Amino acid sequence: MVLEVGILHVKPGEEAAFEAALKTARPLIAATPGFVSIAVHRCVEAPNQYLLHVQWRSLEDHTVGFRQSDRFPRWRELLHHFYDPPPQIQHYGVSVFDPEV
Amino acid sequence: MVLEVGILHVKPGEEAAFEAALKTARPLIAATPGFVSIAVHRCVEAPNQYLLHVQWRSLEDHTVGFRQSDRFPRWRELLHHFYDPPPQIQHYGVSVFDPEV
Repeated sequence: MVLEVGILHVKPGEEAAFEAALKTARPLIAATPGFVSIAVHRCVEAPNQYLLHVQWRSLEDHTVGFRQSDRFPRWRELLHHFYDPPPQIQHYGVSVFDPEV
Repeated sequence: MVLEVGILHVKPGEEAAFEAALKTARPLIAATPGFVSIAVHRCVEAPNQYLLHVQWRSLEDHTVGFRQSDRFPRWRELLHHFYDPPPQIQHYGVSVFDPEV
């Protein structure tokens, strides 16, 4: 299991439109083999900042299976114009507490 | 529910000692009323970088209940010398997809 993580800086004032676009875009990523779940959390201290989490079965399910799919350009088109600056996406492994104790 | 999030930059070469110290420190935070869960994920692209997630029942369970407890100084003593620079901690609300669709 791999966790895709990004801090999303949304242009101030566009938060509601961004959240609506996310719901439109969600099926594009969710249709990818190896997709497990997506969560997008809004920051308490900086309300135009969001935390993106996507769980994947493997790194390649994201980097190849989704990013090289014909659904990815549409995902970018729906979402990337909200970001300033563009997000830096990274990947994380299972928790050091896994299995949780 | 509130998610405490921090990117932890651990001094290179100290990753194994940091992970061991986390396991020692975990009961200090887990004893706090309102603590729900903790996860610490290691970054694939930057192996000395970790993602801290702590789920709390409320913001104050973290900012008051834990940070003002007599267990917090010991937590800092165990962990903070591993970080360079010190982490910026933020809080996030429930996912915009909650309940997940």
